[in-house]
Amino acid sequence: MYDGESRAGPDRFEVLARDGSARRGRLSTAHGHVDTPAFVAVGTQASVKGVDPDLVAASGVQVLFANTYHLYLRPGAEVIAEHGGLHRFMGWPRPLMTDSGGFQVFSLGASIDHGVGKLSNIFPDEQGDGSASEAAGEARASTSPRRPTSGGSMVRVGENEVHFVSHVDGSRHVFTPERSVAVQRALGADVMLAFDECTSPLHDASYTRASMERTHRWARRCLAAFRSGDAPHGYEQALYGVVQGGALEELRRESADAITELGFDGIAIGGNLGRSHHDMHRVLEWTVPALDAALPRHLLGIGDVPGVLAAVSRGIDTFDCVAPTRNARTGTVLARLDDEGRPRRAFRLNLKNAAFARDARPLEDGCDCGTCRRFSRAYLRHLLKSGEGLGPQLLTVHNLRFMERLMAGLRAAIEHGELEAHVVEWLGHNGRLADAVLATDREDAG
Amino acid sequence: MYDGESRAGPDRFEVLARDGSARRGRLSTAHGHVDTPAFVAVGTQASVKGVDPDLVAASGVQVLFANTYHLYLRPGAEVIAEHGGLHRFMGWPRPLMTDSGGFQVFSLGASIDHGVGKLSNIFPDEQGDGSASEAAGEARASTSPRRPTSGGSMVRVGENEVHFVSHVDGSRHVFTPERSVAVQRALGADVMLAFDECTSPLHDASYTRASMERTHRWARRCLAAFRSGDAPHGYEQALYGVVQGGALEELRRESADAITELGFDGIAIGGNLGRSHHDMHRVLEWTVPALDAALPRHLLGIGDVPGVLAAVSRGIDTFDCVAPTRNARTGTVLARLDDEGRPRRAFRLNLKNAAFARDARPLEDGCDCGTCRRFSRAYLRHLLKSGEGLGPQLLTVHNLRFMERLMAGLRAAIEHGELEAHVVEWLGHNGRLADAVLATDREDAG
Repeated sequence: MYDGESRAGPDRFEVLARDGSARRGRLSTAHGHVDTPAFVAVGTQASVKGVDPDLVAASGVQVLFANTYHLYLRPGAEVIAEHGGLHRFMGWPRPLMTDSGGFQVFSLGASIDHGVGKLSNIFPDEQGDGSASEAAGEARASTSPRRPTSGGSMVRVGENEVHFVSHVDGSRHVFTPERSVAVQRALGADVMLAFDECTSPLHDASYTRASMERTHRWARRCLAAFRSGDAPHGYEQALYGVVQGGALEELRRESADAITELGFDGIAIGGNLGRSHHDMHRVLEWTVPALDAALPRHLLGIGDVPGVLAAVSRGIDTFDCVAPTRNARTGTVLARLDDEGRPRRAFRLNLKNAAFARDARPLEDGCDCGTCRRFSRAYLRHLLKSGEGLGPQLLTVHNLRFMERLMAGLRAAIEHGELEAHVVEWLGHNGRLADAVLATDREDAG
Repeated sequence: MYDGESRAGPDRFEVLARDGSARRGRLSTAHGHVDTPAFVAVGTQASVKGVDPDLVAASGVQVLFANTYHLYLRPGAEVIAEHGGLHRFMGWPRPLMTDSGGFQVFSLGASIDHGVGKLSNIFPDEQGDGSASEAAGEARASTSPRRPTSGGSMVRVGENEVHFVSHVDGSRHVFTPERSVAVQRALGADVMLAFDECTSPLHDASYTRASMERTHRWARRCLAAFRSGDAPHGYEQALYGVVQGGALEELRRESADAITELGFDGIAIGGNLGRSHHDMHRVLEWTVPALDAALPRHLLGIGDVPGVLAAVSRGIDTFDCVAPTRNARTGTVLARLDDEGRPRRAFRLNLKNAAFARDARPLEDGCDCGTCRRFSRAYLRHLLKSGEGLGPQLLTVHNLRFMERLMAGLRAAIEHGELEAHVVEWLGHNGRLADAVLATDREDAG
């Protein structure tokens, strides 16, 4: 187990450089700092699936994201608290975030009702470069029915609490804003999120507004619970509020104002980001300018290359997404260029393709990850085809390193005031996409 | 990919110290040396399941064992040869062994015929401490029917060749002694095994003799093919002969003589070792004294603690077994003492036991492995119960380290002439077992 000392001190965020709306910052926590913009790798059940945490760190990952819903159900927050918190429990002495539990309570309990499961596409209308939508969809798509239905929903939302049924063993549970904060306090992540309801693109404006207003009331309760309680593990934890409002301008602006004025340590942007990259860009443009520039901004569930470039360009500091790790486990490798030096479609390579069966080259030319330095495409494909667990593991290491190289490039570009050129360097083969990522009005003009 | 230089030079073995029949030796290969007695960890399909090869090496493993049958079928020996051999293909720059393919040809193709699948118990009659038998059985139990049967055998043995059907895709294949050597040459392991037929405890003496005599004829053909061919990867490879003869004294003595006089680089003891630890002890006592003391001796498929102590005490230098790694993947942890300091039954701990759900202690007190240094039983159990691939991986690292600590202790004991005391230290809580491990006649007297 990790045996590092706990360092006291308030959470804080510092903007070191700006380039347009983009910021190069540093988030300081009791477990070290995070250079932003930063990708937050996901370790749902207190492990980045299949990868030793020392190798996660070696690939450059600065901060992990764990899921309160899963850990609350198994092994239970009290087991983790007895270990001195999640950092020691999972052998990750660096910064950690947890979500509120809300997203999984709604999506695992009820996604069938809306016919948009948690693996569905958050941007169902978008064609063309589908990578972003698939990636984002895997991470964050979904839904929240408001009542039990004949279809067998396992969640019931009230003003004061949410009743849900465990997907593990069918046991019944109740979450409240206060309970979410208490569980996250016990888990001990450096950054916690306020309990929110996540709406889907299938909810109408009226439900989306009612849900958002309830989320605002819950936000106040979370903050009150957070301020009245002590940090149980002897170090400071931060609480971020979550902006909701679907893909509706009026609601997003209202939610950004409402959450900002409550005085959280940071802001997360959650929920339904619309049905396309374009919708997501607009949500960010309605939301971000209304936020307190002194606070760190987290975007929930985006992790594809164009999505990251767009979010960073619009002032997002951190974002989490399961796509880089989940895709790795099925043989989808992140790689920028193909063998002729042209940008790969969606920056992906499908390692199961028979073309790689005898390919002695690394996954990606010039990659410095532990996988590319040691193994060939043919070997890694062999592991995948043979069902050897080492394959997904080594591909995950590569995809994590790809994300870290992407983020390091963005941080340097912002420092040098070259972000626009950097985005064009990544996306210039697709001028329309590059324009869309850089600015909504240019996209509209295109 | 591994990019080490290939070092030329003949394979050789040096005995550095003796204690009774036991030897402390050093096996030199083009990819470094192996301090013996040594455990050879199994990487069936060119990977120790789920574990990064650098972490395998970090746990002290000196040499790996890969399976020719599996690699011949997938990805194919030619793919591995194109990579410069198995060391580079799998990122393992250290010594490697391959088997001949014979064991899997027979066991995967036909084990159903004898009702003794490859996971069955090689010592079916043995009660009491069942750990050894289970462990050995997993690795090496089994059978070889001599003809296709109505039950659907997928293997047919002739004097000149074996026909078999791939368990991967149903394709038809033919192996000969010459083909086994050619495939192993292409794979490029430092130590190769002659093609043999493996008999089961259910074969009668007459079939066991006929099979043994055929194995001897195949051994001569393997050696001729080996000597007439070049090492394709520019470094020397060694070929070991395999002693067969079932659990029959006359046959084992005859096979040991026959294989010894052919002039192999080393000797492996294979096949049916009987139905109990006691039977295995006798097979070793019939076989080992007949071998050339200058040659290294490998025992196929033994890896439980009493089995290892008995084999080393009888002059075995190396042995392979899947049990330590396979057991790890289902939560069976190797650990010497329980929490009261008493020897654990079969030196095992079942991590799925609910008693460990909140246990913040490491798997084994005092273990220096990467798992015990960082993680608690509760965390590791959580990973297992949650289906997280990191759990089996971290348990495998521990079990490998346990085996390496066991072997280091044995090497030191032999150097200091204290092997008997060392065995008693391990097994003294069970005087009858300790006596049996140390000498057959003491066992008979007991």
